[in-house]
Amino acid sequence: MKAGKVYLVGAGPGDPGLITVKGIESLKKADVIIYDRLLDERLLDLAAPTAERIYVGKAVGEHTRPQNEINQLLVTMAKEGKTVVRLKGGDPFVLGRGGEEAEVLAQNCVPFEVVPGITSAVAVPAYAGIPVTHRGLASSFAVITGHEDPNKEESSINWEKLATGVDTLIFLMGMKNLPEIVSKLIEFGRPSSTPVAVIKEGTKPEQKTVVGSLQDIVAKVKDNSLIPPAIIIIGEVVRLRDKLRWFDNRPLFGKRILVTRARHQASALSQLLAEHGAKPIELPSIDIQPIADSMELDQAISNLKGYHWIIFTSTNGVAAFWQQLNDLRLDSRAMFGLQIGAIGPATAEALAANGVTPDYVPESYTTEGILAGLGHRDIAG
Amino acid sequence: MKAGKVYLVGAGPGDPGLITVKGIESLKKADVIIYDRLLDERLLDLAAPTAERIYVGKAVGEHTRPQNEINQLLVTMAKEGKTVVRLKGGDPFVLGRGGEEAEVLAQNCVPFEVVPGITSAVAVPAYAGIPVTHRGLASSFAVITGHEDPNKEESSINWEKLATGVDTLIFLMGMKNLPEIVSKLIEFGRPSSTPVAVIKEGTKPEQKTVVGSLQDIVAKVKDNSLIPPAIIIIGEVVRLRDKLRWFDNRPLFGKRILVTRARHQASALSQLLAEHGAKPIELPSIDIQPIADSMELDQAISNLKGYHWIIFTSTNGVAAFWQQLNDLRLDSRAMFGLQIGAIGPATAEALAANGVTPDYVPESYTTEGILAGLGHRDIAG
Repeated sequence: MKAGKVYLVGAGPGDPGLITVKGIESLKKADVIIYDRLLDERLLDLAAPTAERIYVGKAVGEHTRPQNEINQLLVTMAKEGKTVVRLKGGDPFVLGRGGEEAEVLAQNCVPFEVVPGITSAVAVPAYAGIPVTHRGLASSFAVITGHEDPNKEESSINWEKLATGVDTLIFLMGMKNLPEIVSKLIEFGRPSSTPVAVIKEGTKPEQKTVVGSLQDIVAKVKDNSLIPPAIIIIGEVVRLRDKLRWFDNRPLFGKRILVTRARHQASALSQLLAEHGAKPIELPSIDIQPIADSMELDQAISNLKGYHWIIFTSTNGVAAFWQQLNDLRLDSRAMFGLQIGAIGPATAEALAANGVTPDYVPESYTTEGILAGLGHRDIAG
Repeated sequence: MKAGKVYLVGAGPGDPGLITVKGIESLKKADVIIYDRLLDERLLDLAAPTAERIYVGKAVGEHTRPQNEINQLLVTMAKEGKTVVRLKGGDPFVLGRGGEEAEVLAQNCVPFEVVPGITSAVAVPAYAGIPVTHRGLASSFAVITGHEDPNKEESSINWEKLATGVDTLIFLMGMKNLPEIVSKLIEFGRPSSTPVAVIKEGTKPEQKTVVGSLQDIVAKVKDNSLIPPAIIIIGEVVRLRDKLRWFDNRPLFGKRILVTRARHQASALSQLLAEHGAKPIELPSIDIQPIADSMELDQAISNLKGYHWIIFTSTNGVAAFWQQLNDLRLDSRAMFGLQIGAIGPATAEALAANGVTPDYVPESYTTEGILAGLGHRDIAG
């Protein structure tokens, strides 16, 4: 029997492009993947189809699988000779309990490797335009669990020293305790005017940032209905966001765009859209043949309200789409509230024949052309 | 002209496998790569051969290219319509001056993206078996520049608060100031028995770790002749190294092994050796044909002292190797002090004909067989 081994792998903060090469390599050789609340399910697709996938996480507020059960699972699987990937959000050793798992593996003589991941403590602020250190503003930063109630008697956190001992403070898992955290920091001397950012869904197309000060951040978070989980960053560096925003101010940021196109053409357009901040969803088979397995299209059509744009890239695409609409006993009225793009005049005519005048037909029939057009339009929604 | 853009990319801490997928993608589309003291030159090979490579770093003690010149270079290149990758060790926003570069780009209306990298502050301790946080031991960590003389009058570091305000302290660029750092921490209440690790060449096959306490680490670093750069980590988590070592205690850790083998066979053996901690160097063309460009082999043979093992994987390999030795007016005496492996009895006979009895011939003629043999041997040296 081959010897089992466990890889403790950090998946990064959410953007699936932030996993490391070593992380991907270990996923590819995994017999089993044991993962918790994953930040992007596409990471699991990197593993072999035959790899077993075991979910041990929890949704917010639900029960967690006890840590000692997870530890035992890792040991058992490895002792069966399996290559096990323990996939965790962020970095396994940054408040991720990876150290506990490694301890149990070592005690049981199970060989293991650590594959660090990009920690959300640094990358999520970076995607919000906030460097955790900056010349003249911050030459140190601290990462602290915000999970612990700051008012409990035996706090593991030395609030008195922490409040002013480090330039930038980053709390992970601290949203529930935000009011207590800010009041402790003010109590121990951090000026109440100190800027604070709370960032949710960081590094993802849904990223949302609320900025305030220690004084008013609690109210602002409430006004914006921001709920956990989120990251809290406190310090003068937060002011740089005004200047350094680059991710959530891109022209198509956060827009969900349905692209009806043959797979081999779609990826270029989708990639371009993604680079400008959109979340493109491709409907691959639409151009090529009568749709055998139309589940993907069905789902997309049933959820049209979730999209901002639909871009039609051929007359066949239009025909297949309306065929599917009709099969679902829907018609052009289902397109209410959506913005429609056509890649050229022929596609625009096919849309018109179905009673829809496209909101946008690019002047040049290239992906760049259509992108420029989308970028300049009002696509709020 | 296409619009220029700058990617501020973190290359990670040293192990080239710790770069992110997005980091590689940006290297692949770069017209120019502006890099400083790189941790692994193989990363540059990921870019197109036509990409311009501009070195702006410094060796230790030499002059740096002034930061404002680098900033200007980024702006100029991007304004010429180029896709520019600014490749930095670790993470661009962790004491990496990436924030300053982003500021100048923003001021000049140059579009940019930040591609976070694995920071050495977390990954280097991880490779030394030290988690920066651990349940019951550390629920916070701080990363601090060690570059600043702690005795200068207007210190940006609040030593009094920092010393006991955070559980784990990690100093980057602090080796030169190590004596002052430890004395400040003791002065402000950190127990002198607090464990400290100093890690050099972290995440690489040359990784070296010295462990001590605040009291004796300065002497121990001196005893071990450790010179900058290195990372300093201070806190109870350092004690976990004894239990959690996984990287620098692998059987072949740090061994340089020359593998004479045809390229298509070599990679499997090399990968296996690397996984067990060795640094394999392949001599690819040796089996296939008379060696036209023998530079690689020449170099390897001129530097035989740098290796721990040479593994011969065919009789042709033996013949080609000795041919080359003779061309360089050397003979079997050049193999003094090296351990020699042969993949099977035929190869062993070919070696014997040249006066060398291999130190190891595996019982089973597979890469796994030879590996098991190497692992159990005394390969110090």
